[in-house]
Amino acid sequence: MTQAVAEHYQAFKQRGLKLDMSRGKPAPEQLDLSDALMGPLASYAADDGTDCRNYGLGVGLPEARALFGALLGVPPAQVVVDSSASLSLMHDVIVYALLNGVPGGTPWVTQQPVSFLCPVPGYDRHFSICEARGIKMISVPLGEDGPDMDLVERLVAADASIKGMWCVPKYSNPSGAVYADAVIARLAQMPTAAPDFRLMWDDAYRFHHLGDNKTEIADVLAACAAAGNPDRAIVFASTSKVSWAGSGIAALAASPANIAWWTKHAGVRSIGPDKINQLRHVRYLKDPATVAALMEGHRSLLAPKFDAVQQQFAELLGDVPGVSWTRPAGGYFIDLVTPPGAAKRTIALAKEAGITLTPAGAAYPYGVDPEDSHIRIAPSYPSLSEIALAAQGIALSLKLALAT
Amino acid sequence: MTQAVAEHYQAFKQRGLKLDMSRGKPAPEQLDLSDALMGPLASYAADDGTDCRNYGLGVGLPEARALFGALLGVPPAQVVVDSSASLSLMHDVIVYALLNGVPGGTPWVTQQPVSFLCPVPGYDRHFSICEARGIKMISVPLGEDGPDMDLVERLVAADASIKGMWCVPKYSNPSGAVYADAVIARLAQMPTAAPDFRLMWDDAYRFHHLGDNKTEIADVLAACAAAGNPDRAIVFASTSKVSWAGSGIAALAASPANIAWWTKHAGVRSIGPDKINQLRHVRYLKDPATVAALMEGHRSLLAPKFDAVQQQFAELLGDVPGVSWTRPAGGYFIDLVTPPGAAKRTIALAKEAGITLTPAGAAYPYGVDPEDSHIRIAPSYPSLSEIALAAQGIALSLKLALAT
Repeated sequence: MTQAVAEHYQAFKQRGLKLDMSRGKPAPEQLDLSDALMGPLASYAADDGTDCRNYGLGVGLPEARALFGALLGVPPAQVVVDSSASLSLMHDVIVYALLNGVPGGTPWVTQQPVSFLCPVPGYDRHFSICEARGIKMISVPLGEDGPDMDLVERLVAADASIKGMWCVPKYSNPSGAVYADAVIARLAQMPTAAPDFRLMWDDAYRFHHLGDNKTEIADVLAACAAAGNPDRAIVFASTSKVSWAGSGIAALAASPANIAWWTKHAGVRSIGPDKINQLRHVRYLKDPATVAALMEGHRSLLAPKFDAVQQQFAELLGDVPGVSWTRPAGGYFIDLVTPPGAAKRTIALAKEAGITLTPAGAAYPYGVDPEDSHIRIAPSYPSLSEIALAAQGIALSLKLALAT
Repeated sequence: MTQAVAEHYQAFKQRGLKLDMSRGKPAPEQLDLSDALMGPLASYAADDGTDCRNYGLGVGLPEARALFGALLGVPPAQVVVDSSASLSLMHDVIVYALLNGVPGGTPWVTQQPVSFLCPVPGYDRHFSICEARGIKMISVPLGEDGPDMDLVERLVAADASIKGMWCVPKYSNPSGAVYADAVIARLAQMPTAAPDFRLMWDDAYRFHHLGDNKTEIADVLAACAAAGNPDRAIVFASTSKVSWAGSGIAALAASPANIAWWTKHAGVRSIGPDKINQLRHVRYLKDPATVAALMEGHRSLLAPKFDAVQQQFAELLGDVPGVSWTRPAGGYFIDLVTPPGAAKRTIALAKEAGITLTPAGAAYPYGVDPEDSHIRIAPSYPSLSEIALAAQGIALSLKLALAT
């Protein structure tokens, strides 16, 4: 058996593949879907008459706020459109909280230590923000329907140093988990020892369905408001995986108090966002129906790639004890779960065979997966013809890692 | 006399003017100069093959770094191109210094209090960053050839809490001051009690000449390197007043150590800047000669407006004791200096007459001009036909303020 696996792997290696599957990057054909974005602009005037070429409008164009409001189910007044990346908005929320404190609170830097709950496996760039800016991370297990709420409730009730929690509520990176409505209700209602606790609600994959079942989840802002915690959640979204990954527009949605707070602090950093890019996006993306149609285009490119990975994994790993993987209904990733201690070795073997994967442990705080058992698979960037081969190479690498 | 002034002012007020001169905003005709920026892009590939529509390249496009390198006289490797506004880069440098410390240093938040020297009159948005992020401001007088260096040297040598200094070295906002080469040499060489001291070098008006004499000043990065303080200065620039104020591209130039530091910390905030906007700008702005030609276009629109203000002020205020104003060779502002105690009242009277000016005190830390004697005049936005009238209204308001 070991001999057969080793030979199979060696034969695969001879192909001299060179594939980067380390990040959830859209493929060029996905970016092509939005080339109309660059069409000529009929005018530079926003609906309110603002010349988009000039300074101003730190909260974003009225029509851009209206578009995100419609997409997120939030009144436009509770939406700010800014930056080309929601990650930057998340980062800056944490910076302002650290240096200035959230509404009614004191600066987090004066309340050291500051901790965040991190459902795992999770998004490495969330964890990087915490690590870089001095926020302690506490892992909590993420199941198929959200974080372990018994544990979350116990922790936040007992520890006032816990100031926030990362959440990717839909098609979570990397497992594809979708928060159940009951989980969202508990997150909204749970008593927290810290009065200045925040849910960092990264709604990155809201429109990014892979199957026919277009999952909708509970509205966290409404749930928080209903629970008497209106300022608890801050929602982030962007068009990074709708239009163009490097040049989209991003939004933050929150309570009026949080929006006023953000506007004040972000207004110190900038005289206004790139409104030309907002104008371009609004004229191209128009409304939720147009966005949904565009997302169908993405789905038609992405779903076959996910299917190819599922098929290869089923074929090659279906009968391997201790190996499993997720079958997400949306998003950009599959979480391949290996027996303890095999992820690093698998990733190294895949690398030798020409397939670059996300580093082992990336989905965990401080880059350390305590069981060394999670591999994030990002099927989006390679072409459809490459992806089955890549999945095969990963499966072979895992089998060899387990056999030797 | 008083009666005549009052009548003149009342007659002016009857015109029902409505002009906003509060900010240094480019006029629409200036923005029109760059409408070619929106022309179709022949391709989305950068020189190094990067698909500008996708994630990546946190340091900016190679050709954008090369362009700013050529414009700033710095090797491209010492340039990062990011964001649409240099103000945001300045803000983030301070945030990273506060939370993480500059290279070799400890976080500024752990070294409270932190102070900055602020040459006055200066740029209100610099001061807002300090105020908002908890940095104490110490005013130092700004003369025609730069800050009072005897005082600056004495302060930074004695006080380790002084971690930085704001500098607008050329055509300073609002006085138009230009730092002499000897001043720049002293800033580069001066011993500082703080080992982690930084010059925040806002080269906002580097290409923004109003006269035929295109002032060139000493290279602060070279001066700092020669003085054995290579990491002291961080230079900021943008195309905000070259192409479009709201949608330009911005750059940071500094020592290799500072660039590595910035890249590490900014890499946590973003997966890369809007490279489409960078590509668009590089293909439009091309090289220093093309930028210089474009700036001639700006000059031909701006210089007559400045001339009109100068003419009105000379005519109406030339013989008023204690009143003076600057005659900048570049930049966006004129500093109108009144006898002590007259600025606020003048601005209120101008407002009544339909002319909105920058609030009194804006050019000073905490918004307080201790002598209440500086009025920032921003001639760029009103049309040429309006600007003489506006200057007349301001002069009449000042005369009335002094007479009553």
